[in-house]
Amino acid sequence: MKYLIIGAVAGGASTAARLRRMDEQAEIILFEKGGYVSYANCGLPYYIGEVINDRDLLFVQTVASFNKRFNIEVRIYSEVKSIDTAQKLITVTDLKTGETYTESYDKLVLSPGAEPIRPPLPGIDLDGIFTLRSVPDMDRIKEFAKNRRLGHAVIIGGGFIGLEMAENLHHLGMKVTIIEMGNQVLAPLDFPLAAIVQQHIRSKGLDLRLSSAVTGFDKLKNGVRVMLKDAEPIDADVVILSIGVRPDTRLAQAAGLELGASKGIKVNEYLQTSDPDIYAVGDAIEFPNPLTGRSMSTYLAGPANKQGRICANNMVLGNVQKYPGSINTAIVKVFDMTVGTTGMASKHLQAAGIDHLVSTTHSGSHAGYYPGSKQMSIQLCFAPGTGQLLGAQVAGFKGVDKRLDLLASAIKRESTIHELTEFEHAYAPPFSSAKDPVNIAGFVAENILAGQLSLFYWDEVEAVKENEVLIDVRTREEYNKAHIPGALSFPVDELRNHLEELRTYAGINIYCQVGLRGYLAYRILKQSGFEKVNNLSGGFTTWQACHN
Amino acid sequence: MKYLIIGAVAGGASTAARLRRMDEQAEIILFEKGGYVSYANCGLPYYIGEVINDRDLLFVQTVASFNKRFNIEVRIYSEVKSIDTAQKLITVTDLKTGETYTESYDKLVLSPGAEPIRPPLPGIDLDGIFTLRSVPDMDRIKEFAKNRRLGHAVIIGGGFIGLEMAENLHHLGMKVTIIEMGNQVLAPLDFPLAAIVQQHIRSKGLDLRLSSAVTGFDKLKNGVRVMLKDAEPIDADVVILSIGVRPDTRLAQAAGLELGASKGIKVNEYLQTSDPDIYAVGDAIEFPNPLTGRSMSTYLAGPANKQGRICANNMVLGNVQKYPGSINTAIVKVFDMTVGTTGMASKHLQAAGIDHLVSTTHSGSHAGYYPGSKQMSIQLCFAPGTGQLLGAQVAGFKGVDKRLDLLASAIKRESTIHELTEFEHAYAPPFSSAKDPVNIAGFVAENILAGQLSLFYWDEVEAVKENEVLIDVRTREEYNKAHIPGALSFPVDELRNHLEELRTYAGINIYCQVGLRGYLAYRILKQSGFEKVNNLSGGFTTWQACHN
Ligand SMILES: Cc1cc2nc3c(=O)[nH]c(=O)nc-3n(C[C@H](O)[C@H](O)[C@H](O)COP(=O)(O)OP(=O)(O)OC[C@H]3O[C@@H](n4cnc5c(N)ncnc54)[C@H](O)[C@@H]3O)c2cc1C
Ligand SMILES: Cc1cc2nc3c(=O)[nH]c(=O)nc-3n(C[C@H](O)[C@H](O)[C@H](O)COP(=O)(O)OP(=O)(O)OC[C@H]3O[C@@H](n4cnc5c(N)ncnc54)[C@H](O)[C@@H]3O)c2cc1C
Ligand SMILES: CC(C)(COP(=O)(O)OP(=O)(O)OC[C@H]1O[C@@H](n2cnc3c(N)ncnc32)[C@H](O)[C@@H]1OP(=O)(O)O)[C@@H](O)C(=O)NCCC(=O)NCCS
Ligand SMILES: CC(C)(COP(=O)(O)OP(=O)(O)OC[C@H]1O[C@@H](n2cnc3c(N)ncnc32)[C@H](O)[C@@H]1OP(=O)(O)O)[C@@H](O)C(=O)NCCC(=O)NCCS
Repeated sequence: MKYLIIGAVAGGASTAARLRRMDEQAEIILFEKGGYVSYANCGLPYYIGEVINDRDLLFVQTVASFNKRFNIEVRIYSEVKSIDTAQKLITVTDLKTGETYTESYDKLVLSPGAEPIRPPLPGIDLDGIFTLRSVPDMDRIKEFAKNRRLGHAVIIGGGFIGLEMAENLHHLGMKVTIIEMGNQVLAPLDFPLAAIVQQHIRSKGLDLRLSSAVTGFDKLKNGVRVMLKDAEPIDADVVILSIGVRPDTRLAQAAGLELGASKGIKVNEYLQTSDPDIYAVGDAIEFPNPLTGRSMSTYLAGPANKQGRICANNMVLGNVQKYPGSINTAIVKVFDMTVGTTGMASKHLQAAGIDHLVSTTHSGSHAGYYPGSKQMSIQLCFAPGTGQLLGAQVAGFKGVDKRLDLLASAIKRESTIHELTEFEHAYAPPFSSAKDPVNIAGFVAENILAGQLSLFYWDEVEAVKENEVLIDVRTREEYNKAHIPGALSFPVDELRNHLEELRTYAGINIYCQVGLRGYLAYRILKQSGFEKVNNLSGGFTTWQACHN
Repeated sequence: MKYLIIGAVAGGASTAARLRRMDEQAEIILFEKGGYVSYANCGLPYYIGEVINDRDLLFVQTVASFNKRFNIEVRIYSEVKSIDTAQKLITVTDLKTGETYTESYDKLVLSPGAEPIRPPLPGIDLDGIFTLRSVPDMDRIKEFAKNRRLGHAVIIGGGFIGLEMAENLHHLGMKVTIIEMGNQVLAPLDFPLAAIVQQHIRSKGLDLRLSSAVTGFDKLKNGVRVMLKDAEPIDADVVILSIGVRPDTRLAQAAGLELGASKGIKVNEYLQTSDPDIYAVGDAIEFPNPLTGRSMSTYLAGPANKQGRICANNMVLGNVQKYPGSINTAIVKVFDMTVGTTGMASKHLQAAGIDHLVSTTHSGSHAGYYPGSKQMSIQLCFAPGTGQLLGAQVAGFKGVDKRLDLLASAIKRESTIHELTEFEHAYAPPFSSAKDPVNIAGFVAENILAGQLSLFYWDEVEAVKENEVLIDVRTREEYNKAHIPGALSFPVDELRNHLEELRTYAGINIYCQVGLRGYLAYRILKQSGFEKVNNLSGGFTTWQACHN
C-alpha cells in the first residue's frame, strides 16, 4: 500500500504515525509545503510572549525522527499543486528547486488546514501587519517585536488567538489595544460569560474596544496607522490580524472533490471524501455537529489529532470506525482567568431554533475554608423536556478546565443534567467542595425542570413591571455597598417576617449575589402562597459583569 | 409533618436544609450530641497544620443561622439515646443539664456518622494518643502540639487522613514517622500507584514504615513510647491513631433496625431503613456498590451530602428518587503530589473474582512545550470483553483531580474505555495536550482490547524465561543511566536494523520509560513476524517506583 499525505502537522502527522503502527510494510510519504512539520501551532503565541523560551520545544517530531522512528519519508518545501483522481496521481512542486513531479498513491489524505482570513482592506499588506499560523509567521512577529517591546500593539479580533496574542504581547511589555467588531470577545461564548473576561482584560490595563470596525491602514515611518470607523485612528508598532480562519480547500476543489455547506471539504462519517480513495481530516473538513446535525468546521487540534487516528484505522482496516463529530470544546487562558465553552451557546441554539433553558451559577473552585478558593461561573444550556445538556461555558480562575472537560464529556454522550447531580467527584478540600460546582449547576437545572425554581435574566431586569417588585435578599451591608437600581432590600434571613408587606405586589423578582439565597427566598415565597416569583439567574454577579 | 434528624453535620445538615426548601411548613429539629454543627470535617487536619488559620471558616452553618435562614431548630449537646419505633418517639439527653426527654416524629433521619477505630492495645488510652473526628478532637490535638512543634509525631495508619495528618504535622515543623501495618499506604489503591506516593513521602524526609505493627504504648515523662512488633520502639511527643472508622450503628441496632453484611445500617435504594418511617444517610449506612453489587460502607462527604438531598426528596415526595450508590471516588493531597482512586482497584476486583485487564500510562499534565508540565500516572481497570471501565487511579503533581473526576463520571455511567478515546477535552497548552492523558489511557486500553498490544507487568519482570529476552528500547544514554537488570539495549529508532539478531529468542519482552516507545517497538516486531512479544505496562517508571 502506498499512502500519500498532504500537510504534515496536526492531522497529517497524526495520520502518518498511526498508519505506520497499523501497517509496518506500507509506503508512507508526507508532503509539507512549509519547512516545518509536526509543530505545536498552539504554542506559537507563547513563544512570541517569551513564556516558552526554547524554540526547539515546539517541534514534536522532525523530518529525521519521522524517518528513524516511523520509517516515514517527509518531503518539506514540497507543495502539492494538483490531484489527478482518475490516475491517482498528485503533482508536487519542490519549492527549493522549482522542480515539479508526480507521485502515485493508493490512498491519499488531505490535511492542509485552514488559512487566516485577510480582508481586502486598504493597506492590509503593509509591513507590520501580521497573521499567525505557522512557525515562519511566529519568527517574523518575534523578530519585528524585538525592538518594539515598549511599543503599541493593535490586535484586530478578540477571538481565542487574538486574546492569547494580546496577553503575550502585553507580557513582553507592549501597550495593547484589542479591536473587536462584535459586541463581545470570544464569539463562541454567550455575552454574560464573555463579559466576565472583558472585565478581567480591562483590569489588566489593556484597551479593549468592542463594536469597533477597522476600515484600513496607513503607513507610518515606524509603524502602521489603524483607521477606525467611528473613532480616531490608532498608531501601532505592530498589528496582529486574527479575525478568523477558513478551510484551505483549494486543492480539493480543483480536484473536483465535493465541498460542504460551510465551504469545508465534505467527508462521510469515515472521513472519506467524495472520492473513496481520498480521506481528509483537520481544519479543512466540515462535519455534522452532533447536537444540531448541521455541517460545520472545527478549528481545533484535539479533533484533528483524533481524526488522524480514525482516518488511518479506516484506510488500513476498511472503514471500521466512525468519527463522532466535535462539539467544539475550546478553552483559553486570559491572564489569570480561564474561560471555555463546549457544545452550543444559547445564542446559537436560538439561531438554530432549538428550544432550551439557560442557568448560570457561581461557586467556589474548592472549599471556601481552604486557602486559594476562587469563584467560578458556569452557564448551562439544556433541553426543557428531557434535560439533555446542550451547552456549557465556564469562566474563573482555577479548576475551570476540570469542569469544562466534565461537562464536555456529558454533552458528548448526550447526558442529561440529572447526571450532573449524581456526578461523584473526587473531594478533598484543595480540589473541590462536598458538592462540586458541577453538582450545584446540576441541582439548579434540576430544580428548574422540576418547577421548583423559575428564573429571570440579567437583560430582563429593566423590564420588571410597574406593579411588581425587585427585591435584593442579600444582607443590608451588601445592599448598601451596591445594588441594582430600583431594588428594595429584604434580607433572606428576615424574609419570613415580611411576607405580608410583599403581598401587595403582583410579582416578586428576587436577586442575591449569585443566586443561592435568591433561591431560598424563592422557595419561602412560593410555599407561602406567592404566585409569581422569579429569581435572577447568576444574581448580582452576572448582572454586574454584564453592565461593566 | 415533623421531621427529627440525628446528627447535624454532613448528612444530617444537608437533609435538613433540603427538607426546608421542599417543605416550608414542616417542623424540623436537628439533634447533635456535640457542640458543633455543620462543620468541615475535611478541613480539620489543615487547621491543625496551620494551612487554615481562621477556625471560624470551618463552620458552614451555625445553630443561629440554621434557625434564621432555614427556620430549623438545632439542639446541640443533645444525645439521642434511643428510638421507640412503635410509638415513633426518641429519647434525648441534654448533656449540659443531664435531663432526659422524649420527642415524637413523623419521619426520623439517622446520620450519626462513623467512629474512629481504637484497637484494644496496651496503653491505648494514654495522654498524647489521639484520634481525629470532631472539632474538639482537633482542638485537643492543636493544643497538645502547640508546645511540641519541634517534637516527634507518630502517625499510626497510612490512609487518607493519616497522610493528611502526616503532612500537616510536618508542616508545623515536627519530625514525622508513619507506621503502616500493610505493605503500602492508601489501601484502596493498587501497589504501583501507592508506590509512587511512598517515594514522594520519603523524599520529604518522613520516616515511612510499611508492614510494621504497633503492639502497644508506654507512658513517658513527656510523651508516649510506641512499641513495635519487629523493631525498636519509637518515642513520640504525639501519636495520631488513624487506622480507620466503623459505622456508628448503636442507636439503630438498639432500635431493632436491620444492619447489613458490612455492619452498617441497611437501607433500600430510597435510603429508607427497615422501618419505613426512618431513613438513614452518610457514613453509618451501607449500600450496594454499583460495580460489584456487594453492600459496603462509604466514608465520604460528597455521598453523604448527596444522600441527604435524596433522602429529603423521598421523605417529602414519597420515595421518588433512587440513590445510585457510590464508587468510592477519593483523593488526597500528599505534599506536592495528588493521588486518587475511583471505582475498583485491581486487587479488589481480583478478590471479588471479577475478570479484568489493567493498563498503566504516564503522560504530561499539559503540553510539554508549555512551562510547568508534570508527569502523571493513570491506571485503568477494564472488562476484557466489553471494555467497561471498572476502576481508575491517578497520581501526579498537576491536574490529577481533573482526570480522576472524568474517569469517575465514566465509571459511574458504566461507560467503556472507547469513550475515553473519543473524549473531547478542552485543549490549550496550559491545560492539556492535543491528546489528553485520558485519551492516551483510552487509546492504550483500546489497543489491548483490539489485540494490537499485549502487556506484562512490573512484578512479572523477574519471571522472564531463560530462552526469552528483556530489551530496553530507550536511547543508549537512558539505558546507561539506569536499566532493569538483565535487559539488553535495543533503541527503538534502530530496531528495524536488528530484527534478525532478535529472532533467536522465543519471546521478546520490551520496556521503555513509560510504555510508548515500547509500544512502537511492539508494533514493529509483531508486524515483522515475531510471535511472542510483550510490552511492560507503565515501563521503567512503574517498575522503578515499585522497587523503591
Ligand atoms: C496560533 C494558533 C494557536 C492555536 N491554539 C490552539 C489551541 O490552543 N487549542 C486547539 O485545540 N487548537 C489550537 N489551534 C488550532 C490547531 O492548531 C489546528 O486546529 C490544527 O493544527 C489543525 O490541524 P490540520 O492538520 O488540519 O492543519 P495544520 O496543523 O495547520 O497543518 C496543515 C499543514 O498543511 C500544509 N499544507 C497546506 N496545503 C498544502 C499543500 N498544498 N501542499 C503541502 N502542504 C500543504 C500547511 O503548510 C500546514 O503545515 C491554534 C492554531 C494556531 C494557528
Ligand atoms: C479528619 C477528617 C477528614 C476527612 N476528609 C475527607 C475528605 O477530604 N473528603 C471526603 O469526602 N470525606 C472526608 N472525611 C469524611 C467525611 O467527613 C464524612 O464522610 C462525612 O462527614 C460523613 O457525614 P455523616 O453525616 O455521616 O457523619 P458526620 O459528619 O460525622 O456527622 C455525624 C454527627 O452525628 C452526631 N451523632 C452521632 N450519634 C449521635 C446521637 N446519638 N445523638 C446526637 N448526635 C449524634 C455526631 O456527633 C456527629 O457530629 C473526613 C473525615 C474526617 C474525620
Ligand atoms: C506527534 C504526532 C506526530 C503524532 O504522533 P503519535 O505517535 O500518534 O502521538 P503520541 O506521541 O502522542 O503517541 C500516541 C500513541 O502512543 C501510544 N501510547 C502512548 N502512551 C503509551 C503507553 N504508555 N503505552 C503504550 N502505548 C502508549 C498511544 O496509544 C498512541 O498510539 P495509537 O494511536 O496507535 O493508539 C502528531 O500528533 C503531531 O505532529 N503533533 C504535533 C502537531 C500538533 O498536533 N499540533 C497541534 C497541537 S499544538
Ligand atoms: C451546608 C449544609 C448545611 C447544606 O446546606 P445546603 O443549603 O443544602 O447546601 P448549599 O449551601 O451548598 O446550597 C445548595 C443548594 O443551593 C442551591 N443553589 C446553589 N447555588 C445556586 C444558585 N446560583 N442559584 C440557585 N440555587 C442555587 C442548590 O440547588 C442547592 O439547593 P437544592 O439542594 O435544593 O437543589 C450541609 O451540607 C453542611 O452542613 N455542610 C457542612 C458539613 C459537611 O458537609 N462536612 C463534610 C465536608 S467538609
